[in-house]
Amino acid sequence: MSTRRSYAIVASEYNPELVQELVNSAASELNSQSTGATVVLYQVPGAFEIPIVVQELARTQVYSAIIALGVIIYGKTDHGRLISETVTDHLMRISLENKIPVIHEVITAPDETTAQARVGKEYDRGAEAARAAVEMAQLLNDIARREVSR
Amino acid sequence: MSTRRSYAIVASEYNPELVQELVNSAASELNSQSTGATVVLYQVPGAFEIPIVVQELARTQVYSAIIALGVIIYGKTDHGRLISETVTDHLMRISLENKIPVIHEVITAPDETTAQARVGKEYDRGAEAARAAVEMAQLLNDIARREVSR
Amino acid sequence: MSTRRSYAIVASEYNPELVQELVNSAASELNSQSTGATVVLYQVPGAFEIPIVVQELARTQVYSAIIALGVIIYGKTDHGRLISETVTDHLMRISLENKIPVIHEVITAPDETTAQARVGKEYDRGAEAARAAVEMAQLLNDIARREVSR
Amino acid sequence: MSTRRSYAIVASEYNPELVQELVNSAASELNSQSTGATVVLYQVPGAFEIPIVVQELARTQVYSAIIALGVIIYGKTDHGRLISETVTDHLMRISLENKIPVIHEVITAPDETTAQARVGKEYDRGAEAARAAVEMAQLLNDIARREVSR
Amino acid sequence: MSTRRSYAIVASEYNPELVQELVNSAASELNSQSTGATVVLYQVPGAFEIPIVVQELARTQVYSAIIALGVIIYGKTDHGRLISETVTDHLMRISLENKIPVIHEVITAPDETTAQARVGKEYDRGAEAARAAVEMAQLLNDIARREVSR
Repeated sequence: MSTRRSYAIVASEYNPELVQELVNSAASELNSQSTGATVVLYQVPGAFEIPIVVQELARTQVYSAIIALGVIIYGKTDHGRLISETVTDHLMRISLENKIPVIHEVITAPDETTAQARVGKEYDRGAEAARAAVEMAQLLNDIARREVSR
Repeated sequence: MSTRRSYAIVASEYNPELVQELVNSAASELNSQSTGATVVLYQVPGAFEIPIVVQELARTQVYSAIIALGVIIYGKTDHGRLISETVTDHLMRISLENKIPVIHEVITAPDETTAQARVGKEYDRGAEAARAAVEMAQLLNDIARREVSR
Repeated sequence: MSTRRSYAIVASEYNPELVQELVNSAASELNSQSTGATVVLYQVPGAFEIPIVVQELARTQVYSAIIALGVIIYGKTDHGRLISETVTDHLMRISLENKIPVIHEVITAPDETTAQARVGKEYDRGAEAARAAVEMAQLLNDIARREVSR
Repeated sequence: MSTRRSYAIVASEYNPELVQELVNSAASELNSQSTGATVVLYQVPGAFEIPIVVQELARTQVYSAIIALGVIIYGKTDHGRLISETVTDHLMRISLENKIPVIHEVITAPDETTAQARVGKEYDRGAEAARAAVEMAQLLNDIARREVSR
Repeated sequence: MSTRRSYAIVASEYNPELVQELVNSAASELNSQSTGATVVLYQVPGAFEIPIVVQELARTQVYSAIIALGVIIYGKTDHGRLISETVTDHLMRISLENKIPVIHEVITAPDETTAQARVGKEYDRGAEAARAAVEMAQLLNDIARREVSR
């Protein structure tokens, strides 16, 4: 990729050690995939607060892609599921409305062990998110160029 | 934080003792986190009525953040789940449409004991909501300032 | 309350005896809570048809609140759940878009006994809906007055 | 009813024998309930394709009501549930946006026997849909007339 | 069909062998159903990224239909379900907003064996999607012509 890109990461602070691993891995992979890329990080209290920040960043049209990171461990109540569903839906909406790739790695898990496996080396969802962000930024550029030339 | 802020709490009246604990804890934490802050409280019959009041308050653009508090104990019917899902989704929408933090602590629980643990000292969701409101009010301000200066 | 108000009830015809109890109880409570109030009733075949009528009535801006009443008994198929979810969501949307309280007492139940308990004296959801309608009509008036004067 | 009406049926082709029974029963009941009514039929491959056709027909403002018919038998995957949920939600949206009754008898069933009972004489959802369409067409007319004259 | 048509396939790269079978089968069936048709293929990292590409292609108004292909195997977390639900809903929305058939064959399965059966000869969802795309392209043309002439 020849042009320098900017990426934003929006991460929730709940389950901070797990989220930190996601953030570190995503930022590091962004740098290795997209040389010279700028990466900014915003932190919000919980996952429910992620979309409003993603929306405000998307509207600046400064970023090539935005990555949403967080860890929701489902407890005894329905709260985790309710939050996950609306966060998922609104990350999608923001992406479509602003024509910007939004990568969704707000992890939901029944317990901490399952969450840890996704955060750590086994699945490494942070790095995966970074690669998806870089790939999608390129792809949307390509589509804009290719489809216009028809 | 240097400027004085205004916060609104919208609380449902169902399960009144539990909700009162949430409200008291949230109001008290708002005052300790944000000195001199104004806190207004509106009460509605049930959780389904929360979003319309949150919307009307959000549109005034007077408040730095709005906190939705309530307790839904799931019964033998699907009603609690149905209400929870639409309330969650519309609190998110109102937040995004009005660019205002809406903090969602409408608690859902399978029984009163589980609800009580979230309302009381163990989880203290009221205080947590207040801290999230203050943090998000500050963060949205920061984003507006930082992103514009790019 | 000093001014005379108009309320609309929109009720589905499925499970007619149960719905009739809801309607009677709601209408009677509206009259005792809000002296001289006008109450109009519209009936639709099933719960899926409730929102379009609620929407048309909401748009007239004639009513102080609209009450949706119905009884959905879940059968062997997913139909009841699907209908309940979309009805719940669209009653909320119509309320928010038209700034009018919409009270949702479309009861969902796994069987007739559970539905009967909610319709009858034990829970008396019809009267509860009426009280919520009157309270919300007053509250939205208060908010309009109080928030404008700031 | 004194004026001649037009109704549209949009049916999916999956599980063709079952859907055919729904269509036949709906068309026959429309003719007996609404003398001289015009009934047009459009067929689409699967239930997911129903809403786009319902939308295009609704926008013509030619039809008094549109009936959506189909049979989704849930298999080993989530596909049937996913399709049912979005179809239900979008039939509702199209109805509200275009102020036209949309009758939803896209049947979901865990197996063919359960579907057959709903399609055949036991429940006869096709005829039920037709009666709902005729009743709703009349009701929306009445509302337009009655509410305007206030 | 007399006029030459263009179709787009948008496929996710997760579970690549399974998706490749879907793509091959869909492309081959498109060519046999619609002689001389142009078929373009876009690939995205995961299913969550499908809708933004479908949207951008839909807005060009170049394609007669767009086919979304992917395989989501549900794991130990809720992620697969969350993604499937929002993808399903937004493929529908994009279809309705742009009046273009969007065929949804993003397969969800509890395990690889179940997914394989849908991808391979037993169910052959790729070919099914292609036939639905061709049929729907023709049908929407017919509706435009027929309904306008009324």
